[in-house]
Amino acid sequence: MRLAVGCDLGATNLRVALVAEDGQVLASTREAHGDREPEVVARRIAARCADLFAMAGRTWNDVAGVGVGLAGQIHSATGRVVVGPNLGWRDVHFAALLRDRLGRDVRVVNDLNAAAWGEHRAGTAQGVDDVLVVFLGSGVGAGLILGGALYEGASGLAGEIGHVKVRPGERLCGCGERGCLEAYVGGHHVADRLREAVHEGRAQAVLAAAGGDVNQVGPHALHLAAEHGDPFALDFLEEMAAFLGLAIGNAITLLNPRKLVLGGGMFHGISRLRPLVERAIRKVAGRAQAAELTIDESALGDDAGLVGAALLALP
Amino acid sequence: MRLAVGCDLGATNLRVALVAEDGQVLASTREAHGDREPEVVARRIAARCADLFAMAGRTWNDVAGVGVGLAGQIHSATGRVVVGPNLGWRDVHFAALLRDRLGRDVRVVNDLNAAAWGEHRAGTAQGVDDVLVVFLGSGVGAGLILGGALYEGASGLAGEIGHVKVRPGERLCGCGERGCLEAYVGGHHVADRLREAVHEGRAQAVLAAAGGDVNQVGPHALHLAAEHGDPFALDFLEEMAAFLGLAIGNAITLLNPRKLVLGGGMFHGISRLRPLVERAIRKVAGRAQAAELTIDESALGDDAGLVGAALLALP
Repeated sequence: MRLAVGCDLGATNLRVALVAEDGQVLASTREAHGDREPEVVARRIAARCADLFAMAGRTWNDVAGVGVGLAGQIHSATGRVVVGPNLGWRDVHFAALLRDRLGRDVRVVNDLNAAAWGEHRAGTAQGVDDVLVVFLGSGVGAGLILGGALYEGASGLAGEIGHVKVRPGERLCGCGERGCLEAYVGGHHVADRLREAVHEGRAQAVLAAAGGDVNQVGPHALHLAAEHGDPFALDFLEEMAAFLGLAIGNAITLLNPRKLVLGGGMFHGISRLRPLVERAIRKVAGRAQAAELTIDESALGDDAGLVGAALLALP
Repeated sequence: MRLAVGCDLGATNLRVALVAEDGQVLASTREAHGDREPEVVARRIAARCADLFAMAGRTWNDVAGVGVGLAGQIHSATGRVVVGPNLGWRDVHFAALLRDRLGRDVRVVNDLNAAAWGEHRAGTAQGVDDVLVVFLGSGVGAGLILGGALYEGASGLAGEIGHVKVRPGERLCGCGERGCLEAYVGGHHVADRLREAVHEGRAQAVLAAAGGDVNQVGPHALHLAAEHGDPFALDFLEEMAAFLGLAIGNAITLLNPRKLVLGGGMFHGISRLRPLVERAIRKVAGRAQAAELTIDESALGDDAGLVGAALLALP
């Protein structure tokens, strides 16, 4: 069975894995980012590859491809990172840089495109040609599998559902625009909005669930308050679901996928959220498009991007 | 040069054309629908083909394909019309029926998918791989060219931008749902909304532009009133542009096409509308997605669907 190396350059961690072509992770490493200089990251990946080969009893001869996933805009054909906000990268030819270090061709892709491909090839969307994969974590994004292929868009920016406007002109998003979905439901923004509510005296149960420490107010405290039946927390979740339902439901009307995959830390951390979001999506999406749609939980979870990046690199 | 027959089964007219593979229309016919029974329509198309061959001095031997475009949900692989609302069709195997009559393979496609393909192969989007084509007439719809291919979705329903929700739960649309884009900006709904405004005494200038006849109140009277600087008409157009900008701008954020093509009778009839809509789209779409987007007028206009259906049928 052919093997590939997958790398996930996340917001906090660098992960590297040796992945079989069926998506099985044979060995993996995870470490906090140190220096984020591209040269340093490439050197660290090379060192982790050596570790993985030792762990799994393999060599470079067993490896048919190297794939890297990271958040940002990637020029697909060349593997140039146009913008990689988590790493502070701009116009970094990372595919070329890592190829020079490893002596292997390297494919660099957006992390959510990688995750979508992982779910399509080795997760819950195997055998399904038309799939929308939405991840809700500190940010919000999507990957599109259309007609059995990854769709990256004209400039590598397809799938930016987090920056679909749900309240045009209103809340400021990290991207500098106003009214984006992410400004309401992304984990960082949820924490900010909850703290604003605490300061306005509207979220005492959430503050209590955070042990009275406003710095601990965030999605987990929201989850705890909702589990205790706090009306503010329950309304807040309903509102989050409505925003997600609007953006995702409209995407389903426009794209008519067969399957929607929902993943990301917010769904794991807030157990009430998923059924609320599913209901909101089905309320907004066109009836005919919704009729044949299945909605699934991500099967690969945190590994989706790692596995997908590896599988995308297989020739 | 290879030829194809293209048919456009519109809301009011049946059009048939002999089209060269470069998109040139060699000869065409147009007639009001009579009996809309599928057998009758197929017989009429066969008769028009004979007329076209006589007009152009050609025979069936010169024809490499037959394509039919119509509004509705089409099962792409079989050419079965799942729902064709303008014709009152439901589960009509029209490709098979017309093939039996013509002795030729027939491809049946959604009319806006055909129009998008026409613009991609012979119109303003030639050589562009990622294109969103939006037509605004009595209804609103889109066709998607993604990665150089027509994208029809899992059930042949991709591109239904007219049924994206812009005001969830509010105005009733012809599709039976509430808050669809089409319920605010489709030609029929614009006429209804203007008449409602007349009855409420808010649109006297539009009524005057319709010669004082409320039955003549519609998009054309709106255009005339706007040209005379009527504030109600100008506000109405701004609001239409905002709804269109929201739905189309969000589609651009999600899909990242290189080109947007705007067509349809409403843009021709209301000359102020296009610049307003373009501005609204650029306000809503993600900045990075908008930066490399060009927005063009449909080059083929009314012929886009006819030409596209023909060209889609070429092997």
